[in-house]
Amino acid sequence: MISWKNLDTVAAFEKLSALKNHVDLKQALAGENGAQRVKDYSVPMAAGLTYHYAAKQVDGEVLDALQALADETQLKAKYEALYNGEVINTGEKRLVLHQLTRGQLGQKVVADGVDKRAFYEAEQKKAAEFANKVHAGEITNAAGEKFTTVVQIGIGGSDLGPRAMYLALENWAKKNGACFMEAKFISNVDPDDAASVLKSIDVSRSLFVLVSKSGTTLETLTNESFVKDALRQAGLDPARHMVAVTSETSPLAKSSDYLAAFFMDDYIGGRYSSTSCVGGAVLSLAFGPDVFARFLQGAAEEDKLADNADVRQNPAMLDALIGVYERNVQGYPATAVLPYSQALSRFPAHLQQLDMESNGKSVNRFGEPVAYVTGPVIFGEPGTNGQHSFYQLLHQGTDIIPLQFVGFRSSQVGMDVDIQGSTSQQKLCANVAAQIMAFACGKKDENPNKNFDGGRPSSIIIGDQLTPEALGALLAHFENKVMFQGFVWNLNSFDQEGVQLGKVLAKRVLAHETDGALKAFSDLLGI
Amino acid sequence: MISWKNLDTVAAFEKLSALKNHVDLKQALAGENGAQRVKDYSVPMAAGLTYHYAAKQVDGEVLDALQALADETQLKAKYEALYNGEVINTGEKRLVLHQLTRGQLGQKVVADGVDKRAFYEAEQKKAAEFANKVHAGEITNAAGEKFTTVVQIGIGGSDLGPRAMYLALENWAKKNGACFMEAKFISNVDPDDAASVLKSIDVSRSLFVLVSKSGTTLETLTNESFVKDALRQAGLDPARHMVAVTSETSPLAKSSDYLAAFFMDDYIGGRYSSTSCVGGAVLSLAFGPDVFARFLQGAAEEDKLADNADVRQNPAMLDALIGVYERNVQGYPATAVLPYSQALSRFPAHLQQLDMESNGKSVNRFGEPVAYVTGPVIFGEPGTNGQHSFYQLLHQGTDIIPLQFVGFRSSQVGMDVDIQGSTSQQKLCANVAAQIMAFACGKKDENPNKNFDGGRPSSIIIGDQLTPEALGALLAHFENKVMFQGFVWNLNSFDQEGVQLGKVLAKRVLAHETDGALKAFSDLLGI
Repeated sequence: MISWKNLDTVAAFEKLSALKNHVDLKQALAGENGAQRVKDYSVPMAAGLTYHYAAKQVDGEVLDALQALADETQLKAKYEALYNGEVINTGEKRLVLHQLTRGQLGQKVVADGVDKRAFYEAEQKKAAEFANKVHAGEITNAAGEKFTTVVQIGIGGSDLGPRAMYLALENWAKKNGACFMEAKFISNVDPDDAASVLKSIDVSRSLFVLVSKSGTTLETLTNESFVKDALRQAGLDPARHMVAVTSETSPLAKSSDYLAAFFMDDYIGGRYSSTSCVGGAVLSLAFGPDVFARFLQGAAEEDKLADNADVRQNPAMLDALIGVYERNVQGYPATAVLPYSQALSRFPAHLQQLDMESNGKSVNRFGEPVAYVTGPVIFGEPGTNGQHSFYQLLHQGTDIIPLQFVGFRSSQVGMDVDIQGSTSQQKLCANVAAQIMAFACGKKDENPNKNFDGGRPSSIIIGDQLTPEALGALLAHFENKVMFQGFVWNLNSFDQEGVQLGKVLAKRVLAHETDGALKAFSDLLGI
Repeated sequence: MISWKNLDTVAAFEKLSALKNHVDLKQALAGENGAQRVKDYSVPMAAGLTYHYAAKQVDGEVLDALQALADETQLKAKYEALYNGEVINTGEKRLVLHQLTRGQLGQKVVADGVDKRAFYEAEQKKAAEFANKVHAGEITNAAGEKFTTVVQIGIGGSDLGPRAMYLALENWAKKNGACFMEAKFISNVDPDDAASVLKSIDVSRSLFVLVSKSGTTLETLTNESFVKDALRQAGLDPARHMVAVTSETSPLAKSSDYLAAFFMDDYIGGRYSSTSCVGGAVLSLAFGPDVFARFLQGAAEEDKLADNADVRQNPAMLDALIGVYERNVQGYPATAVLPYSQALSRFPAHLQQLDMESNGKSVNRFGEPVAYVTGPVIFGEPGTNGQHSFYQLLHQGTDIIPLQFVGFRSSQVGMDVDIQGSTSQQKLCANVAAQIMAFACGKKDENPNKNFDGGRPSSIIIGDQLTPEALGALLAHFENKVMFQGFVWNLNSFDQEGVQLGKVLAKRVLAHETDGALKAFSDLLGI
């Protein structure tokens, strides 16, 4: 029987809290013991990735306390309940099924009379067949020319995840003969966003993927109109250039305005939708269905690894629990995500949504205020770029910010240059290894300005290369980490009521139904 | 006589600290008083911008306390000392002269026997003349063809600022016939970064701007080799395709490897160098020298406004002091920068470096530890995109994160579409107005999950349009804000010793001079 308890009522948390500042990283990583610790403190992930936590402030005792916390908060049982189709999104009374888009971990999940795994697979197949026809020239523009560009129109989860995934695989796909179409993204209601993208493409050779679950997202519908105007002005029929990704009940679903419609449903939140047709349509069009299938495969394998009650064997659960220790015991306010891979340039922006929108909440899953801090601020940029930017604060600032590194032994393109006895790829990898140790161990200096206290914890996920499978595994790892943290904090990680008030007020502004300060601000902004 | 004191020894700070949670935003912004407050709590900036702080937790009493703090910490006198050429960067024993790249606020500043204002102007003139010749086809590739693309090779301040400025003006320039060349940027030592940019351009028609003050930045020199290899492989002479931006004493300065060299000096930190030739070369090539001059003009005017002892008339000083109040009295850990302008998509990344690298420090300007928190975490994405992402945490998370909005009444391109009775630009502006009020005032709801406590402070800078002048003013505003905060916290905001240790360790890894945990991590990364 699952019981949902606030973190501050969990006995294991009280024990964990007694272990504040329990581990001295400098000491833990010193000498040959340190080398052994690096070997020991690692967990295999899917797709050849490994999660390393030797530079986290944990030892056997902390790990035991985290295990006790995992047990008492029933993390595995809650994950099982989720993938077996219980109503985990209690606020909106919905199942939470994004893992089902890439595999079936438990029993058959039937909702609304439908086998949901079969449904997701059927939609993926539809999208794959559509993409294949586009690539084969069976679906073309009115002039019979092949489409060369796919433009995703969506915002939030319909934009950040798919965009980050596209950028992550773009160069890999080009290198491996799997880049069928270039992808672009229009998201912002700022008209300069759509204008700029439209100026950069040949609209006559472009397919537009309109993504809105409800079919009512104002930004997205506005940008759709923008695009349709541009198509018409170019003498083209919009209906030959647009597909929809939406729910079956949305006004877009059966419209003749679209060449095709691929369906998602209410059981997949926007920020968890990269492995549904929200990511599937654009990524299959860009890189082909096989690459998208490999991406799903990596995610599915990672999901399986998350289904393990032993925290030392479960990378997502361990990552989540260490994060809770850092946030609620150590008192750290933020987490930086630092991929040493330019291809992951927008991965931190995706994680920022995934994490902050899921767990940036002050009430528990029953709507009662919690008395502890929940989700941290998430931010990050790729290394080595970040090293020449905000790392100063990370090394010597007054707050300690835990770090989440990602690194790969090989580049995607394979072009490289040898300077001063090493390649660029080696320099990249040397830098991330160096940073881990610099943060953890610091360095004494008589000049306090050049002194590094160390004691700044980090983890790193290491892989061979950023392949579709590795990307899928990476994505699922963080999705599952966020899910487990939500369980520990007793939150509903799958709704987002905090975004509603702004929408309501914006409508009121546009309808000129305001007074007082809101009217004054609106006037200043020329509305 | 200037005296440098730690914040916790300043009497005015003690008074300010007594004003914790002094203002109830909901109350302050209610009714017609709220509308009046919006009008009253604003300060004109340069280029038609205005800084609005009605949704900050201040009132007359708090403002008086901030004024007292500004007076006692001698903010104006310290700014004067800086622009008159005192050694403000005490750690590195350097003058701090970035404001001098765009105007002369005080006396003539002579260093190393040179009138520095004249020096910066002369270098800008050199870059302008060079750009004009390139645009006129007087400087061409070996085949006599015009250059169409400029690629900046640099990292940190040589990348983030110029890149953010380029993106901010790209669409404006295209609309206004001022886009002479497309610009690209190579920064990361990840070889996939350079490989990807090189594949996207015609190298035979590209000019490369190598930016490194010291001429020894490893990432940048590595990427230069990468580019030179590509040029040679295309049968081209690199020396006909490259210019350098560096200091006069650097090994690059007199090299015949470059078509031209434009100089900066040690008195301009990388993160403050967008208005020097670091930004000047690439922006003049991309948009023409006139646009760059207008950008400098906006910055210069903003610098003048910062030279005012009255905090109510000095937007940068006021913004800085409110930030100190939020950080050190209210205890907020981070600040989000939220431009409602897609053109400013990378402006938050630039501010992240500017702020966190300047003030992310634990020792004062004399190298003594401080006993208070200093620079916050800075992050952000453009609105409305962020609304569909991390705003959930900003609205309902357990931490309060102060917000810095930016908005413009008009778009840059002017293409727009009317949907449901309003244009995209109106929707964009309506959203930012709505967000300010939603954050500040919240909304009671019986369902605690849908309840918004409010009390979340924000400011907004509003302008007509993001022009070169407005961008310059915006940039200078934040530079000066960071400078004033550094003065209040008694930091040296102009060095960055925190980035050194990682560099040293990375070299050791590449030389295989490591043992213990560092060797173990290096092995895992395949080095």
